[in-house]
Parts: sequence; structure tokens; C-alpha cells
Amino acid sequence: MDAAVSLFNVRGYSGTSVRAIANEAGVNGALISYYFGNKQGLLEQLMIDFLENYTNIVEESYKKLELVSAKSCLYTIVTDLLKYQQKNHHLARFVHREVTLDSTLVRELMMTYLMKEKHFVKALVEAGMKKKEFRQLSCDFVVIQLRALLTMPYSQPQYIREVYHLQPHEEYFVQKYIKHIERWLSEFLYNDISESEELKLNKIVSNK
Amino acid sequence: MDAAVSLFNVRGYSGTSVRAIANEAGVNGALISYYFGNKQGLLEQLMIDFLENYTNIVEESYKKLELVSAKSCLYTIVTDLLKYQQKNHHLARFVHREVTLDSTLVRELMMTYLMKEKHFVKALVEAGMKKKEFRQLSCDFVVIQLRALLTMPYSQPQYIREVYHLQPHEEYFVQKYIKHIERWLSEFLYNDISESEELKLNKIVSNK
Repeated sequence: MDAAVSLFNVRGYSGTSVRAIANEAGVNGALISYYFGNKQGLLEQLMIDFLENYTNIVEESYKKLELVSAKSCLYTIVTDLLKYQQKNHHLARFVHREVTLDSTLVRELMMTYLMKEKHFVKALVEAGMKKKEFRQLSCDFVVIQLRALLTMPYSQPQYIREVYHLQPHEEYFVQKYIKHIERWLSEFLYNDISESEELKLNKIVSNK
Repeated sequence: MDAAVSLFNVRGYSGTSVRAIANEAGVNGALISYYFGNKQGLLEQLMIDFLENYTNIVEESYKKLELVSAKSCLYTIVTDLLKYQQKNHHLARFVHREVTLDSTLVRELMMTYLMKEKHFVKALVEAGMKKKEFRQLSCDFVVIQLRALLTMPYSQPQYIREVYHLQPHEEYFVQKYIKHIERWLSEFLYNDISESEELKLNKIVSNK
């Protein structure tokens, strides 16, 4: 599957044959057919795997909302989603590009995974607002923008590498990016952050 | 060109023929060949047109930085880029997807337009920090995240329509989105201290 993803990212989905994938992976083409049926089956499996894990990260963290604050719940989601994408950056790039196409598969995946993801993030943001941990803002826009920030480095890694000379696939980048998003959330979304917390954040940011 | 963009968005670039574009546009295929050479020529022209206008919006606003505050300069860029994408939403979607591919054309366009765009936005953010209008943050991350927020509704309009039932191609959406980004900027980036200084300065000026 790694072989398929790297070929799809260079040649595009249409430009990659099952034979080329088999060659790249060093396996027999029949093995791919046996497991996935055909190229479309492989594509579906790749997207489902990625989106299922992505959505599970959100859901698992949301389930702990009864035990922890909305802030720490959101922090876990941000951290885990960025780390997950960093670890699977080839796949992340491929899936983020594929979901921008108008196809029956994409619409189905949206209904199954992306609506679920939105449901949990939105419910979390609403809970945070109700508990007065978060400011009263338009939930939909907060969720859309948070998703934009979380996916950007992994949907456009090449842009970030070539234009900013930063390396989204490296651990170092993720650590800095998490801090930056956390700072964004604390200024924009979180209510009444204590002075000591703000000092800590300032230190973190100035250490960059 | 509208015909080409709408076919590319549904069938993908590889799945669309020059003949299909000519049929959709109601013109002779030879006319397309005459103007653009071939499909690759048409693709290049579409991407160059979009990115040139996009980058010009940033550059034109940046040039006025000597006359206006960094905040108002940034506000103009945000507003104009969102309105531009809304008016050309089919093209925007296509170009934002194409630039995620690994190709020679994309690398060239990045060097020509996206580096220029980043240069002006970053110079503006740095100027704002120097003037103490903006807080001291990591410039690169501010520029990357701002770009993520500005392009998201137009790179993933289908996601936003199907999952949030919002319509990024409508005037109404743009107005709300601009306000939300402006709020994000004012909480996250703008310096409160400089605002009160500005007030003081305004008082001094008005007392004279």
C-alpha cells in the first residue's frame, strides 16, 4: 500500500497501473488483485483506512470529555491528528487531495467519516462554550478553520517545503506546529486564560 | 475556459479530452488548439491566470503599506482574496487541487507565484510586527495558517457544502467568513497595546 500511495502522489491515480504498484512493492500483481480486487478497490481501502483512523482519534478523545476539560480534550485531538498525519504523510497527502474530487466514493466517505468527524469536533466546541471554557463563536466556522489548520501541512507538504523550507514530515515541525495552533486556540477560542498560562505560552512561542 | 474548468472538476484533468471541452463550450476543437496549443497549454494558461491575479491582489495591497496601517493592508488582502476566489470558485477549486501535485509545472508556478505571494504577505506581517501593530509570532507559521484559512473554503467547497451545508460560492458566505477571519486576526495577531497607543495618538491629533 505504501508503494501505491507513493506512485499515486507522483503520477496521479489515473497514471498508475496495478502492474506498476506490484513492481514498486516487489510483489505479484495477482496478490494485489486477491486482496483489493482492482485499483479502485485499493484506492477505497487506502482512503477508508486513513479516514477511519482519523475519525477514531477524534471520537476516542471526545469520549473522555466527561473526565477532562474541553480544552485538554481539544489539545489531545490537535496533537494526535497532527502526529497521525506526520507518521502517514504520504497517505495523508493523497487522501486530502482525493477528497477534493467530485465522485460517488468521495461523497460516500464524506457521509461516513467526515460528517462523523465534524459531529464530534462540533459537539466538543459546543460543550466548551456551554462550560464557558470557550468563547461564544460560530461553531461551524471554528470547526472549518480548525480543520484547515490541521490538514494544511499534510495536504500541501510540497508547497510548505519549497516555499518555506519547512519539513512537515519531521517530528520537529509537528512540535512547533502544535504549539502554534495551541497559541491560536488560546488567544482566539479559550475564555479567560490565567496569567501564568499566558506566560508559559509566551515562553513557548519565544523559544521557537 | 469555464467549460474546461467545470469538466476538470468533475472528471479530473486526465479524464477530460479537448473534444469534450470543445463540445461543452460549443466551439470548434481547432479553436482551442489555436489558442492554447493542447490540453497542457490550456491547463497552464488557467493556472497562470488564476495565480497571477491572486498574487497581484497581494502585491497591490502591499504597495499601499506606506500609506495605511499594516492591519488595514492585511484586511484588504483578506477581503480581496476571498472575493476573488468566490467570483472564480470553479477555477479556484481546480488550481488549489492541481498545486498539490508533484509536477514540473507546479514547481515552476510555485517559484513564480507562490513564493512571490509568500514574500509580500511575510513582508507585511514583519512590517506589522516592527510597527508593534502585530504581536511577535513566528512569521512563517502565521503566513501558512493565514493561507490555509483563506483557501480552505475554495479548495474544499464540496466538503463545506455537504458537511456543513454552507455555500462558499455565495456572497453571504464570504461576508461571514471575512468577519470570522478578521476576528481571528484581531484576537491572535493584532497587538492590543498598539491599539490603545493608536487611540492616544488619535486624541493628540484631534486635540490639535
